[in-house]
Amino acid sequence: MSKTIAINAGSSSLKWQLYKMPEEEVLASGIIERIGLNDSISTVKFDGKKESQILDIHDHNQAVKILLEDLTRFGIIESFDEITGVGHRVVAGGEYFKESAVVTDEVLAQVEELAALAPLHNPANAAGIRAFREILPNITSVVVFDTAFHTTMPEVAYRYPVPNKYYTDHQVRKYGAHGTSHYYVSRQAAELLGKPVEELKLITAHIGNGVSITAVDGGKSVDTSMGFTPLAGPMMGTRSGDIDPAIIPYLIEHVEELKDAADVVNVLNKQSGILGIYEKSSDMRDLIAGYESGDEKAILAFDLFVNRLQKFIGQYFAVLNGADALIFTAGVGENAAEVREAVVNGLTWFGMDIDPAKNVFGYSGDISTADAKVRVLVIPTDEELVIARDVERLKNN
Amino acid sequence: MSKTIAINAGSSSLKWQLYKMPEEEVLASGIIERIGLNDSISTVKFDGKKESQILDIHDHNQAVKILLEDLTRFGIIESFDEITGVGHRVVAGGEYFKESAVVTDEVLAQVEELAALAPLHNPANAAGIRAFREILPNITSVVVFDTAFHTTMPEVAYRYPVPNKYYTDHQVRKYGAHGTSHYYVSRQAAELLGKPVEELKLITAHIGNGVSITAVDGGKSVDTSMGFTPLAGPMMGTRSGDIDPAIIPYLIEHVEELKDAADVVNVLNKQSGILGIYEKSSDMRDLIAGYESGDEKAILAFDLFVNRLQKFIGQYFAVLNGADALIFTAGVGENAAEVREAVVNGLTWFGMDIDPAKNVFGYSGDISTADAKVRVLVIPTDEELVIARDVERLKNN
Repeated sequence: MSKTIAINAGSSSLKWQLYKMPEEEVLASGIIERIGLNDSISTVKFDGKKESQILDIHDHNQAVKILLEDLTRFGIIESFDEITGVGHRVVAGGEYFKESAVVTDEVLAQVEELAALAPLHNPANAAGIRAFREILPNITSVVVFDTAFHTTMPEVAYRYPVPNKYYTDHQVRKYGAHGTSHYYVSRQAAELLGKPVEELKLITAHIGNGVSITAVDGGKSVDTSMGFTPLAGPMMGTRSGDIDPAIIPYLIEHVEELKDAADVVNVLNKQSGILGIYEKSSDMRDLIAGYESGDEKAILAFDLFVNRLQKFIGQYFAVLNGADALIFTAGVGENAAEVREAVVNGLTWFGMDIDPAKNVFGYSGDISTADAKVRVLVIPTDEELVIARDVERLKNN
Repeated sequence: MSKTIAINAGSSSLKWQLYKMPEEEVLASGIIERIGLNDSISTVKFDGKKESQILDIHDHNQAVKILLEDLTRFGIIESFDEITGVGHRVVAGGEYFKESAVVTDEVLAQVEELAALAPLHNPANAAGIRAFREILPNITSVVVFDTAFHTTMPEVAYRYPVPNKYYTDHQVRKYGAHGTSHYYVSRQAAELLGKPVEELKLITAHIGNGVSITAVDGGKSVDTSMGFTPLAGPMMGTRSGDIDPAIIPYLIEHVEELKDAADVVNVLNKQSGILGIYEKSSDMRDLIAGYESGDEKAILAFDLFVNRLQKFIGQYFAVLNGADALIFTAGVGENAAEVREAVVNGLTWFGMDIDPAKNVFGYSGDISTADAKVRVLVIPTDEELVIARDVERLKNN
């Protein structure tokens, strides 16, 4: 009766999933939103049911208490003793963490120290860790880093061509993100292709509201599109991705409401990408509806989105000097057949060719035609499962 | 006896080349440096000789007078009447100029108006134009734009995924640069390959102190790596190229001497790239010497430089959905066999393969092995010749 909970804490939210391990059976999942605000909402899904309650939750500590109470209240567990492990997603592991780690005072201090690299995320992650340590002090607590999978990148990928001191004194380098997702789908891809991951060159495209593309060589991340922060890379839902950095001082000088670089980067993070061009929404489903209705801004936004994905895929074909497969995952990657079709149909020279009968909503697996030299796969990601597995592994160490 | 002079005016310099047209014979060339400073230097090359004089030159007007005097003083021409045309390189043509144009009052006003897009260059270019108009008012004066060749880019290439108003109200878009060079070498490549340029997909890599890579489809630029400014793209001599834009506010917050975005972009333009990593020099010859001596920073800088070139080449294979040839040009591209070797040897999957016997200093032409599916060419660029030809063409219109 070993149960493990996977936690993804944001600044005002806490997402969780409860597993029976080692069976990897999902017993329940939920989200607590608006922590620290009025009318917080706790939603729990279990046994095909969904229960929500509105109440005031002041901080992450209280959120964890509510979540645990819900688990007993709904009879999902009988006693807290059943929970033997908790795994926390942490966004920035910096150069400290090359893999998941059991939480100690030192580890927690390092997670908090790394807040400079993820000011919105790491403090929230740390708050979640503290809350569990206080309320369930005897269970195994593990941290799983978004950046860990990318710590295998060579210097040529993670360094920027800027003065060396910005790296040595200020930690400016590429860290990447979505590591657990890229890790998970690369292993699933190897299974699907019937080859050891060590023998494969893969390009994993995690396309959700955030987008990151990774070059995975022999199972290791050798380059990824997110950079020092998650702003870098292809175009995203509300993020511009890479742009000429000289645009920043130009906008400060020419646009009244942009006072400094932080203002501009805020716009590049929150009001750009699909939203910046389409204007009506940052959601791919809305964008595709707009495209199909002939909305010119929707067409431009969709075409830009596809173009930037194609450029990064081409880039990673270069980094890997060829690839065995391209993997689509995450919300858009798993569901938007239109995006996959547009991306791959522009890259036929690379040996990719998708079968329209397989490239449909709801299908996952190999969507290539029989003759395609480079396979195109759709693989649902499961970051929570990776977290639960890491807890299980480290608990038994 | 028709002579045409091609002018490339910088903020404190004026480079020129005198042609006999339509024979395209170079009669003389020179450079005037330190305009507006003490001890200006005027250097003239002709008939295998090189003459220099030091004197005080206050402005571009005076520089043009000195240059013309030198032409008669050294007997290169007998009278100013022999000069029938002048072509001026202009960096930014914005969205006004899709091709070269005969200078009129309106054209000159537009060149000056576009100074917002090239604050260091367009005012200097305009000063050169004014000086010639005053001193030789009766000759044909033509402007040739660095950006004109790239005005064929589709919206998907030139738009950034940022709020639309930055484009519509503030002209923030990709303009590209080195257009005359990409144009020239793409035509030379077609000749070398024995096919009409309209039937070719080419990737032109202009690699000097500045670096830009262009995807040329059917003779037209469809994408290029320089952006709103020449900071964007791969790593360069002193420029970072593309980096995560969110690094800018982070550096302002964490590095004492960087007060605002303009400070950071100044560092990204002038103290980054090869210089930022290698520290000793921004020059590829020095870097290769450092690399060969085992200097670790030189090795890292060289590897980063090559990696960024490979990524852009892969990107343009994606944009073009395959390519017939990759063309190396400009100072580094024409001369550094080590760079070409490192770049292409990492891209063999793409069907490129260079012949070590041909990939040597001083050789130009096709350097591929017989079997290579995608050709690799070395083609010396000649931007001045393009300028002189445009003067000749527009003079006779």
